[in-house]
Amino acid sequence: MTTSTSEQQSLLDARYQDGSAPRVSQWSPILESLLAHHSVRKYLPKALPGGTLELLVAAAQSAATSSNLQTWSVVAIEDPARKAMFAGLCNNQKHVADCPLFLIWLADLGRAACLGQERDAVIDAIDYSDIFLASIVDAALAAQNAVATAESLGLGSVYIGGIRNHIETVAAELKLPPMVTPVFGLCIGYPDPTETASVKPRLPQAAVLHHDVYSWPQQKPAIEAYDKTLKAYFDGQGMQTGGWTKSVISRLRGIEQLTGREGLKASFRKFGFKMK
Amino acid sequence: MTTSTSEQQSLLDARYQDGSAPRVSQWSPILESLLAHHSVRKYLPKALPGGTLELLVAAAQSAATSSNLQTWSVVAIEDPARKAMFAGLCNNQKHVADCPLFLIWLADLGRAACLGQERDAVIDAIDYSDIFLASIVDAALAAQNAVATAESLGLGSVYIGGIRNHIETVAAELKLPPMVTPVFGLCIGYPDPTETASVKPRLPQAAVLHHDVYSWPQQKPAIEAYDKTLKAYFDGQGMQTGGWTKSVISRLRGIEQLTGREGLKASFRKFGFKMK
Repeated sequence: MTTSTSEQQSLLDARYQDGSAPRVSQWSPILESLLAHHSVRKYLPKALPGGTLELLVAAAQSAATSSNLQTWSVVAIEDPARKAMFAGLCNNQKHVADCPLFLIWLADLGRAACLGQERDAVIDAIDYSDIFLASIVDAALAAQNAVATAESLGLGSVYIGGIRNHIETVAAELKLPPMVTPVFGLCIGYPDPTETASVKPRLPQAAVLHHDVYSWPQQKPAIEAYDKTLKAYFDGQGMQTGGWTKSVISRLRGIEQLTGREGLKASFRKFGFKMK
Repeated sequence: MTTSTSEQQSLLDARYQDGSAPRVSQWSPILESLLAHHSVRKYLPKALPGGTLELLVAAAQSAATSSNLQTWSVVAIEDPARKAMFAGLCNNQKHVADCPLFLIWLADLGRAACLGQERDAVIDAIDYSDIFLASIVDAALAAQNAVATAESLGLGSVYIGGIRNHIETVAAELKLPPMVTPVFGLCIGYPDPTETASVKPRLPQAAVLHHDVYSWPQQKPAIEAYDKTLKAYFDGQGMQTGGWTKSVISRLRGIEQLTGREGLKASFRKFGFKMK
């Protein structure tokens, strides 16, 4: 830990960019690294050191998992042609092809289903939404540990929700058995230093942190302030935007914003999730 | 970073306990801290330093969020009577009452819904399963950053899926508006050093890490080995178990294992999630 208190405060301030950041009261290298997160969409054509993938997976497996069911898996894609193919399925996101390691995180109830089947055991609970939700949460907790570890090793990353645009094709390419589904992709690699990505400000804490009960009124001034903060941030990057509220509404306007994902529920059913 | 390579290898080995751990090739304080994770279910009656909650939330907000929609919120419960009440709703898990800080993480599409309503805007995409899934993932990524930070500050934690046992009562207690739902709880506090919790072994990587395509055959020997590993682990803690496979099947046997959560989907619909 080599940063001074004022450098630490600067990291916190950068996460909000409106003077609302909490004060530095404690610190750790982990907090420092997490605060500095930004998504990386431009990668150097440089291979990862041998063993990196396995360390990322060890970190991922160290995350909590509901009832130790370990209902997730991950598929590593390193072959350039295969990465390019998945990039095409993810709305042609170039970084999916360019990153040295593309991970596809899976909610995996198939492992438990196979074990039940082999032993001719009744496992009726597997068909309920609660277990499906726990599986998605398991996958997300694991992936986030991998992201934190990657960044601590000097790597960058970006989550790829676009893996759900053509989820049935992706599942077929991965040869997924029943009750296994892709949840999101994740690019990992060395950030191209020419990329000018920076820490993006988030909503003031008043909008997301509640005490005792949820409050909408406390959020309203925080969101109004954030509309201005985010507009200033994008102005600084030469991008004209209308603030956060407009972008939220625009992103959620209609089915055409879902880029194919409006069929997600039907795909889940095809994969064998009953979601009772 | 004060650990030697052999100490680092020991941390990796402890996560698998079967000799299958990857070799140390790189290292970081973050990897070290994440590998050492174990859930803490016994807390000292000791308050957190002032400002801890806000630092945890700053770390949480630094996690990636789909399309910057920030579709999560968190409610902090610190009042002893209120913690005890939530403990009662979570199958009387004593640690929920005893920890100094109980966090309830929310998938929050209500913020976007309110913004749309106030502006009389059409936001039809909000009713689709893809956006609901993204909201759950958002909440999980955020919470895992908070967990990593808490542990780096000497605190312990445990996720509480039991918050979904009586999810409608919890939602009412939190005064949640439409399109906001609890996803999981999280206890945070100082671990009681008399608790003998230790790192729990996970499945060998061969069971969860796939290359190019998903493979069930590669998992089978890994799972058989893990049945023995986990049995030995619990034997060491004086607990008789039949191995992992049996525990998975037992956990998923029937609706009675869901402790009330079999109604989760109906509750989500009551909360206003259409899950199209």
